[in-house]
Amino acid sequence: MTFGVQSKGVYAIATTPFFENGSIDFDSVDRLTDFYQDSGCTGITILGIMGEAPKLEPEESRAIIKRVVSRAKVPVIVGVSAPGFAAMKSLARSSMEIGAAGVMIAPTPALRTDDQIVNYFAQAVEAVGEDVPWVLQDYPLTLNVVMSPGVVAKIISNHPSCLMLKHEDWPGLEKISRLRAMQKAGELRPFSILCGNGGMFLDFEPERGADGAMTGYGFPDMLSELIDLFAQGKRDEAHDLFDAHLPLIRYEQQLGIGLAIRKYVLKRRGVIASDAQRKPAQMLSAAARAEVDYLLARLAKRDPRAAV
Amino acid sequence: MTFGVQSKGVYAIATTPFFENGSIDFDSVDRLTDFYQDSGCTGITILGIMGEAPKLEPEESRAIIKRVVSRAKVPVIVGVSAPGFAAMKSLARSSMEIGAAGVMIAPTPALRTDDQIVNYFAQAVEAVGEDVPWVLQDYPLTLNVVMSPGVVAKIISNHPSCLMLKHEDWPGLEKISRLRAMQKAGELRPFSILCGNGGMFLDFEPERGADGAMTGYGFPDMLSELIDLFAQGKRDEAHDLFDAHLPLIRYEQQLGIGLAIRKYVLKRRGVIASDAQRKPAQMLSAAARAEVDYLLARLAKRDPRAAV
Amino acid sequence: MTFGVQSKGVYAIATTPFFENGSIDFDSVDRLTDFYQDSGCTGITILGIMGEAPKLEPEESRAIIKRVVSRAKVPVIVGVSAPGFAAMKSLARSSMEIGAAGVMIAPTPALRTDDQIVNYFAQAVEAVGEDVPWVLQDYPLTLNVVMSPGVVAKIISNHPSCLMLKHEDWPGLEKISRLRAMQKAGELRPFSILCGNGGMFLDFEPERGADGAMTGYGFPDMLSELIDLFAQGKRDEAHDLFDAHLPLIRYEQQLGIGLAIRKYVLKRRGVIASDAQRKPAQMLSAAARAEVDYLLARLAKRDPRAAV
Amino acid sequence: MTFGVQSKGVYAIATTPFFENGSIDFDSVDRLTDFYQDSGCTGITILGIMGEAPKLEPEESRAIIKRVVSRAKVPVIVGVSAPGFAAMKSLARSSMEIGAAGVMIAPTPALRTDDQIVNYFAQAVEAVGEDVPWVLQDYPLTLNVVMSPGVVAKIISNHPSCLMLKHEDWPGLEKISRLRAMQKAGELRPFSILCGNGGMFLDFEPERGADGAMTGYGFPDMLSELIDLFAQGKRDEAHDLFDAHLPLIRYEQQLGIGLAIRKYVLKRRGVIASDAQRKPAQMLSAAARAEVDYLLARLAKRDPRAAV
Repeated sequence: MTFGVQSKGVYAIATTPFFENGSIDFDSVDRLTDFYQDSGCTGITILGIMGEAPKLEPEESRAIIKRVVSRAKVPVIVGVSAPGFAAMKSLARSSMEIGAAGVMIAPTPALRTDDQIVNYFAQAVEAVGEDVPWVLQDYPLTLNVVMSPGVVAKIISNHPSCLMLKHEDWPGLEKISRLRAMQKAGELRPFSILCGNGGMFLDFEPERGADGAMTGYGFPDMLSELIDLFAQGKRDEAHDLFDAHLPLIRYEQQLGIGLAIRKYVLKRRGVIASDAQRKPAQMLSAAARAEVDYLLARLAKRDPRAAV
Repeated sequence: MTFGVQSKGVYAIATTPFFENGSIDFDSVDRLTDFYQDSGCTGITILGIMGEAPKLEPEESRAIIKRVVSRAKVPVIVGVSAPGFAAMKSLARSSMEIGAAGVMIAPTPALRTDDQIVNYFAQAVEAVGEDVPWVLQDYPLTLNVVMSPGVVAKIISNHPSCLMLKHEDWPGLEKISRLRAMQKAGELRPFSILCGNGGMFLDFEPERGADGAMTGYGFPDMLSELIDLFAQGKRDEAHDLFDAHLPLIRYEQQLGIGLAIRKYVLKRRGVIASDAQRKPAQMLSAAARAEVDYLLARLAKRDPRAAV
Repeated sequence: MTFGVQSKGVYAIATTPFFENGSIDFDSVDRLTDFYQDSGCTGITILGIMGEAPKLEPEESRAIIKRVVSRAKVPVIVGVSAPGFAAMKSLARSSMEIGAAGVMIAPTPALRTDDQIVNYFAQAVEAVGEDVPWVLQDYPLTLNVVMSPGVVAKIISNHPSCLMLKHEDWPGLEKISRLRAMQKAGELRPFSILCGNGGMFLDFEPERGADGAMTGYGFPDMLSELIDLFAQGKRDEAHDLFDAHLPLIRYEQQLGIGLAIRKYVLKRRGVIASDAQRKPAQMLSAAARAEVDYLLARLAKRDPRAAV
Repeated sequence: MTFGVQSKGVYAIATTPFFENGSIDFDSVDRLTDFYQDSGCTGITILGIMGEAPKLEPEESRAIIKRVVSRAKVPVIVGVSAPGFAAMKSLARSSMEIGAAGVMIAPTPALRTDDQIVNYFAQAVEAVGEDVPWVLQDYPLTLNVVMSPGVVAKIISNHPSCLMLKHEDWPGLEKISRLRAMQKAGELRPFSILCGNGGMFLDFEPERGADGAMTGYGFPDMLSELIDLFAQGKRDEAHDLFDAHLPLIRYEQQLGIGLAIRKYVLKRRGVIASDAQRKPAQMLSAAARAEVDYLLARLAKRDPRAAV
């Protein structure tokens, strides 16, 4: 499996497991890597927004990249977004040297006009090098940068090294349709679209033209199965599976505590040893934890994977 | 039923029905009013963000208030948020004269510090008059004003005429718990909390201390039933009902096209004659309409109200 | 003098004079109108952001338009920016019926992408009517909407009724140069550029291609003189005059209290009877008032108009 | 001279000099350090927003800190603001080891409520260590975080290691007065206030209670002289000096190209060898450069330091 414009399936957004004392739990990193692969993931994305990257020292980031790359049999993408191009370049170059398949770049929050956005990515590509394959992250809800379909198309056209769009605009179904229509009309070359937003619209995104998902929902095995069902044209079965998970998917999609929920679920599934976060951390209240437990118990009646 | 700090149940956020030519369809206004009441709604909120209020002339707004107030047997709340206090005062005073039970006020988007927010509502109350009962709308996702629990508490404490919080912070479950805890500790007087966000977290909000919902989801009859189930302690049944609707609730919760979906569902249910919006309108694509149809068809298997 | 793509000179941004009790002081409105004309202004803009428009009832707005239009011998522009197109259309139509020369429209703060901005003005023009001449207001600092030169050009090209740009981007000198270069290259039809930002860069804007100023600085007579000096090629004299006023221009350019300073200066110059603002008002502290007095006293040594 | 709550005078915001090829020009770093001291600066702040810090590799940042600290006889403050606390802590600790007098911390742009801001600085202080003296940077125009006087007071009260406020709110005169009034009333312990914003209001800030300036205007010798004149009660002389520089101060205060202007002036004054910036850089157009030259020529008639 390689990372390219034909990439399909599920790229897991990996969390970074810590011990309660804040140090990195590399055994859990290994288990998580195996778990994603065993779940049918076709790629792994590390050090993204949900990977607590800004809480890591540069050497720690490199150690995690090494650990995952050396163990994974699927392509590994490294999030290299940074306030400055020096840090972005430095992390991107060392990621590629270590053996990553590519990097992911999000726009810096201050960008406003179409020109500013297009220029930013030109500068980013110059910084990391035109030979480094990359994923364009489109995430207005958190990053506060709105890219029209035309701007996304321009960036993809300008940069042959941009192989994939991580799509998490909201609402975003029409955007996928528009981009694929531009492609069909010959205005845009092929590129892969994997969807984020925790999977909240993954019951319709594949039919709109998405190739899969790039998200960190605690049940990547379900996500893989879902994408497979769509590939087989089993629409109703896909929706049945999705609907069973939607209450939890929705619950996880809470800004700020989403990561806490995700880590808690992965811990309850036995994948990571602790759901500890480095500071500053927003943890689950007792009430929230009980709500997640209740949702898992309800889900277990329809999906045995949730019987944890 | 009156509007007060003990208000419970479902306040429907009413859409404003138009004919295809853009004029107001008053017959549909009547049918909608009846529909909300027959659905068990304990109140109706008109001219809110989803009521296309900024597209109405002042006389049109007044005509709609009159029509709904004269027909409804439940309290009617009028959205009076405006960029200036002159318009807010004017609409609030005439709403009350016509017979509204109260008004709803949202913060103006420019507010940033706690003091600015608290002062804004002091000025708003001075403008509309201390005798006008009102609902505080807390909606950061769209209004971009973030109120901490302490700020909400201060506004409620400062203004005896503030009877209700329309809660649509996201994530917001902890905020409800915090506010109710402050009340329990004697730091805060009683007030009603009705939740918005299209009902996205209504399967947990009542247990956190919410008194019900204030939202315009196309199945207010389901919302009323859900609140009743919680009142009766039937947690699992409540979740079963909620989960059946969640795929549609989630689909409707798309900024920009949410109103189009809502109007389309109300039209398909036979409540309003047309799903026309006044310009500027974001309408459903053919693909989106087909997706809503599919979701309704799936829902109909579990809730006969969706068999439209 | 007419309002058109060849408009030059100074369009005064008029304040709205109130009595201490908050009612409109129409005698001061008259004196202000005369004062602007006697100061050499070639136009007057009323009900803009600095005109406390959102604090006025619709009838009051119309009364002010009537009063100014019936007295002024120069073109009167009316600010009609509003959160909804209904109010914008209504105010624009009645402004034109009363005899205004045109209207001014600013983008609504939520706009982000180039397409959104261009579409917004298409909708605005459709609302007010293609026959209504208008000024495009470009004011990112307050409105938070950033228009690239390309977007401004597109709006001007799309709408023959757009005759003028009120330029108050900051920094904005290069933008003027860019737009005039596009015009020179035949990519853009003629249009007038008047600059805002309180005049902060008016010592360089004319040479970059601006036709004058549209601002409410308390010395419009100085602004007219400045534009005349530039027209005569007296660069050094223009800078001498400008530099004498810059300490006060700069002091007035404080968001929030700028209007208070402006009204205070106009009152001290004997033009308006009171510097009262309608609520919510941000008034000058005693220290700030003393600072303005000091700046006026210093200015009076170099410009006798400041000896008040 | 030490860095403490009694610090007065001018702390220069240092630029980082580069060669045309992008490498650091350490000779110019030395000359700049000497120049600031010879100009009467009582401190030097490096690696701030205007120091192109995000364009530097970690080793480069450390090399610059070493170079300046080893040469300077005045306290050196290091800007350590970062998107994550790991990088902040790491840079702060090594800055102190190298011999810096303290660090400067700005709020991260996402903060909104008073509580969020106060908590952020509590976490930052925990990260860098309670023993590290620091400057609180209050810069809403660029950072988009608005701190009320009450919030600033709370942060100062919570953290004895916070010795100084870098004040660049705009408008901000009343904020200085309010904070000093709180101190006078015994509600707030002593702390130093140095003002930024390029010096735009430095003709009034000392009388409001500021202890001086922290800014990078190309004439730090003028800033020192200005603060001295105020200290001697020579108000009119201070204003005469300030007014002569205001046209250039104002011109430099253009977001985006401010740094280019500043470096160009320092180069013309012979302090740094080149005005090159690392990418991404916003450079001066020929027109802008000519405007700066003209302003310098005009200034030279009143201040011989500008005869370059």
